Amino acid sequence: MGDTVLRRKVDQRDRGKLGAELHQFARELFPICRSITGEGLRQTLSIIGRRLPLQIVEIATGTPILDWVIPKEWNIRDAFIKNSHGERVVDFQNCNLHVLNYSTPIHTKMPLSELRPHLFTLPQNPDWIPYRTSYYKENWGFCLTQNQMLGLKEGEYEVCIVSSLEDGQLSYGECFFPGTSTEEVLISCHTCHPSLANDNLSGLSVATFLAQQLLGRNLRYSYRFLFIPGTIGAIAWLAKNRESSKRIRHGLVLTCLGDRGPFHYKKSRQENAEVDRVVEHVLNHTDPSATILPFSPYGYDERQYCSPGFNLPVGCLMRSVWGTFPEYHTSADNLDFIAPHSLAESLEVCASIVDILENDQRYKNLAPFGEPQLGRRGLYPSTGGTSPELELNARLWTLNLSDGQHSLLDIAERSNLPFEQIRAAAELLLGSRLLELAVDNRADRTSIE
Amino acid sequence: MGDTVLRRKVDQRDRGKLGAELHQFARELFPICRSITGEGLRQTLSIIGRRLPLQIVEIATGTPILDWVIPKEWNIRDAFIKNSHGERVVDFQNCNLHVLNYSTPIHTKMPLSELRPHLFTLPQNPDWIPYRTSYYKENWGFCLTQNQMLGLKEGEYEVCIVSSLEDGQLSYGECFFPGTSTEEVLISCHTCHPSLANDNLSGLSVATFLAQQLLGRNLRYSYRFLFIPGTIGAIAWLAKNRESSKRIRHGLVLTCLGDRGPFHYKKSRQENAEVDRVVEHVLNHTDPSATILPFSPYGYDERQYCSPGFNLPVGCLMRSVWGTFPEYHTSADNLDFIAPHSLAESLEVCASIVDILENDQRYKNLAPFGEPQLGRRGLYPSTGGTSPELELNARLWTLNLSDGQHSLLDIAERSNLPFEQIRAAAELLLGSRLLELAVDNRADRTSIE
Amino acid sequence: MGDTVLRRKVDQRDRGKLGAELHQFARELFPICRSITGEGLRQTLSIIGRRLPLQIVEIATGTPILDWVIPKEWNIRDAFIKNSHGERVVDFQNCNLHVLNYSTPIHTKMPLSELRPHLFTLPQNPDWIPYRTSYYKENWGFCLTQNQMLGLKEGEYEVCIVSSLEDGQLSYGECFFPGTSTEEVLISCHTCHPSLANDNLSGLSVATFLAQQLLGRNLRYSYRFLFIPGTIGAIAWLAKNRESSKRIRHGLVLTCLGDRGPFHYKKSRQENAEVDRVVEHVLNHTDPSATILPFSPYGYDERQYCSPGFNLPVGCLMRSVWGTFPEYHTSADNLDFIAPHSLAESLEVCASIVDILENDQRYKNLAPFGEPQLGRRGLYPSTGGTSPELELNARLWTLNLSDGQHSLLDIAERSNLPFEQIRAAAELLLGSRLLELAVDNRADRTSIE
Repeated sequence: MGDTVLRRKVDQRDRGKLGAELHQFARELFPICRSITGEGLRQTLSIIGRRLPLQIVEIATGTPILDWVIPKEWNIRDAFIKNSHGERVVDFQNCNLHVLNYSTPIHTKMPLSELRPHLFTLPQNPDWIPYRTSYYKENWGFCLTQNQMLGLKEGEYEVCIVSSLEDGQLSYGECFFPGTSTEEVLISCHTCHPSLANDNLSGLSVATFLAQQLLGRNLRYSYRFLFIPGTIGAIAWLAKNRESSKRIRHGLVLTCLGDRGPFHYKKSRQENAEVDRVVEHVLNHTDPSATILPFSPYGYDERQYCSPGFNLPVGCLMRSVWGTFPEYHTSADNLDFIAPHSLAESLEVCASIVDILENDQRYKNLAPFGEPQLGRRGLYPSTGGTSPELELNARLWTLNLSDGQHSLLDIAERSNLPFEQIRAAAELLLGSRLLELAVDNRADRTSIE
Repeated sequence: MGDTVLRRKVDQRDRGKLGAELHQFARELFPICRSITGEGLRQTLSIIGRRLPLQIVEIATGTPILDWVIPKEWNIRDAFIKNSHGERVVDFQNCNLHVLNYSTPIHTKMPLSELRPHLFTLPQNPDWIPYRTSYYKENWGFCLTQNQMLGLKEGEYEVCIVSSLEDGQLSYGECFFPGTSTEEVLISCHTCHPSLANDNLSGLSVATFLAQQLLGRNLRYSYRFLFIPGTIGAIAWLAKNRESSKRIRHGLVLTCLGDRGPFHYKKSRQENAEVDRVVEHVLNHTDPSATILPFSPYGYDERQYCSPGFNLPVGCLMRSVWGTFPEYHTSADNLDFIAPHSLAESLEVCASIVDILENDQRYKNLAPFGEPQLGRRGLYPSTGGTSPELELNARLWTLNLSDGQHSLLDIAERSNLPFEQIRAAAELLLGSRLLELAVDNRADRTSIE
Repeated sequence: MGDTVLRRKVDQRDRGKLGAELHQFARELFPICRSITGEGLRQTLSIIGRRLPLQIVEIATGTPILDWVIPKEWNIRDAFIKNSHGERVVDFQNCNLHVLNYSTPIHTKMPLSELRPHLFTLPQNPDWIPYRTSYYKENWGFCLTQNQMLGLKEGEYEVCIVSSLEDGQLSYGECFFPGTSTEEVLISCHTCHPSLANDNLSGLSVATFLAQQLLGRNLRYSYRFLFIPGTIGAIAWLAKNRESSKRIRHGLVLTCLGDRGPFHYKKSRQENAEVDRVVEHVLNHTDPSATILPFSPYGYDERQYCSPGFNLPVGCLMRSVWGTFPEYHTSADNLDFIAPHSLAESLEVCASIVDILENDQRYKNLAPFGEPQLGRRGLYPSTGGTSPELELNARLWTLNLSDGQHSLLDIAERSNLPFEQIRAAAELLLGSRLLELAVDNRADRTSIE
């Protein structure tokens, strides 16, 4: 049996306090103007690096990566639209969403009619600023509220974007904890969105805190955390790690984990991968309104990890699903939209997932002919305890199915009992010499090879 | 990729016009007194032969075929019952259903009491004439409406059936279109019913028009159309083609395709044959109230094709199921009971089925590591088009699952997108050199062997 | 084909008369104070032995059996609590449930306060006596109604239990009918409960009557009936028959078969064993409100038979499930709680199960190419009979699926027709030389090896 159970360690802390810390971390990162390259991204990785042993990887513009090429690096200092009175009617200093992300530099005057094709609004939510990008087609533009737009009178405007789009680097952060096995668990989150909270400061915060929980533990699996720009970052990492990516045995993309909606888990392309079963089990016992979604090739970076050449067992854990909530990719996805309680619960779910991955072993019942006499060993619960039937049930199931073929997760699934209950029963039965570890547990075998 | 898509060719015609032509064809055939042998059957095949290169096969009475023997040939010129005033109170010239099909000749007088056992009515539908046969037990009789029956007064009647039941031939029609592969698609319909429209002038008409659509096309599979008397015709064909029947890779029995009910598809005995999946897919995307039925050994000629010695992958496509609509096997199954619109829609469904069979190939993604950069190739739809998400989705699914293992139908099923959408995506990706045909496509391999 | 069909033999008797006989048998056994050892158990086996060739097996106290040891033998003659007036306020002679089963002897006086920890009641059912045991921890006690308890005044009581707990024997009964095959069907029921009717005089009675039905029949399988004390008896039998238990191909634990509830069947650990399919089929066609339960390692002696070292295909047939009805393990589980009609119906279900096990063979259609001409053989039902379509359907299904791969049960399941209908069709087709027995029927093959 492994170390202390991670989930219990998380639970022992006050959920309110934990949620507040997660939210505070998101708050610290919120104002930074991130993109898929540039100083905002570097600054974000540097703040994460204060908490974790993070390796920063940089790849030069123009480097071919799989079917793609590292783009130019984008940086921005200021941007505004001034009216004829010299007033900043749209101002990057107020909100970094106001600029079309990856806008080329510009400083000129033009009439409103010429400016209009470069302005983006959300007519159906007239007080929200949309989030728009143009990474791979050079363009410039401003995002503003529909009400701002309506306030613009015909006339001449000064348009200024103090940005640069030049040869540079694409940056990402990587944090690796070696375990007993060389097989890896991948946790990936995107770090390229500017002032958006749920998408994806929530995923980034939960991933950071989860990694902190793993620091210094004796681990069965090796763990790899990636903090990367969406799409291009995952492609860059895969291009650099084509061979070693084969060691990834389980993986999760973390995103949209701070809103108040129920959990959603999108399965890996394999759809019956162990991680798919593990997450489904945890959500079944955590959130009655959780939904398991089939794989689809549209979404976050699971698209890349699950491309047919790699076909890694990587799913995507979310609360609300991108594109299904109106705040998605707007200024309304702000710090109020994410709740400390939701962030803490998301971290707990991740801890439970890790606990199953770390402890899901196969055991052999050492007294498999008939039931062993539990009473003699003090394992037939006396009527005093809390839910003695549940405990006895977990012991009987664990004995009955521990034939070297069924893992503890198999037993938890078939008995419909929480994994932790089965794990605790196995620990007790192991102590009573009624179980032994089966020799062929895959992860451990692999590390010996 | 194959020729032009058949379904599109059908759709481009006006459905109203197409339905009218189908209905007109059924109308032309309606008055003929068909049976499982004889001149009515020959005349029907001859009319079909004006549209198709139809080979007429004849087998002599007494020839053993599997467990059966070709029966005597039946022909009829006239039949009536005259009352004491010499009035034809039941008259074959009014409706050929009035005679028990395969009645032996008779000309005599008898009192009503003696005649009664030879009279068949439908008390629950007093204005309808039932359809009855006695192929394998010599008998004579009349079918009449319950109201006609009630009008018969006691007394002497003249009973006359001018028929012959003599050594002759059993006839059927066969039409074959060779394709690239020697593997065959079988389309079978029964042509032995007299003036009944849905059962089965509808199936016969749809089959004829479908065959006309295939004329002159470059085909992947070879296609075989059978226009045969029910049961005995299928048995005769199977007896003559025992070895070559093994080339049938997909098959459909077409019947009851003209009424206004929703589609029903009865699966082949194999139940997971490719044709079963193809029809289910087409109906899922065509008719929300379509029903998929399990195989059963009772029904139309799929009984014979799916007998255990042959076990061919042949299902049965219907709208309303035989025996479940009151008009079944009565004079109410007439030209009003079948609708031009229904006939046209049935033909469209058949065309879609053929399109999948012709185009269901496996492809290999040539850029399988990560997603290829679609934008660079103009394959990331610009926001102008209609349903760009749907098109992009189809492309991403096709890329993601084109690993040489999944066919386009597999991809359509898993993505829940219409096959045609996936086929169109594959065609586009093929043009962009992002896909290539996998080498092991079964149909084509077989033709090389 | 086997002997006369057992179910028909049962059905031909009057269900009322059969139920009365079953109930009378339970009535005869009801007053005896049974336990897991001792004279009450011996007397019960002796009464069963009047009806069956029952071998009584005894194993001495102290004998190790698997992880357990045979306990001391318990016997009891009398027990009471007398108040200060010398009145028996709790009296074993009135109901043997009044004594904690396996109570050590005691004769003393004590104040009520000292007596209380040894008294057990059911406050929620104040007129019922609970049933309690203490087999493996020496103790003494009395079970009484809550109302009796409330009537006890403070003061001195005479407490007397005239029991013995000494080295002796554990007894069980075994009845074996050899069949053509050495493969066995196991029927097991527990016989250790004192005056409780549903749990388990009902199971014991049905098992006895079922065995009587098998007496003198030509059997395909060998049948083994076990009348054993719960848990320790099953463990003792398994310990003595570790090797020969491998011959058990199908098994059922019978319990709670007399109440008025719908049937429940708990599957074997294998969950797809043939017996699981057989019982599910019979219940589907018998009791529309029957429920199939998944295996769980908690329950009756299927716990032992399905322990991972044995993993026998043994399920548990019940009407109401233990622990789910309030009368369970109380004096309300009496002769009124079990109904003659329910007992008779339970026996009928068991007979149907045996009929399937005995007759479930694979056949080969001897005219598999096309349908054979049934009319010529008088097998196409004339319209006179009752449900001719059902009979024809059974014949067509049996012909269609008799390819040597599908057993009659496979055919019954796929056609959704009762097994008996399929069996009758097979018998008829066998008579018409349209079927022959496939050579590879497992049970018969095994007996040759």
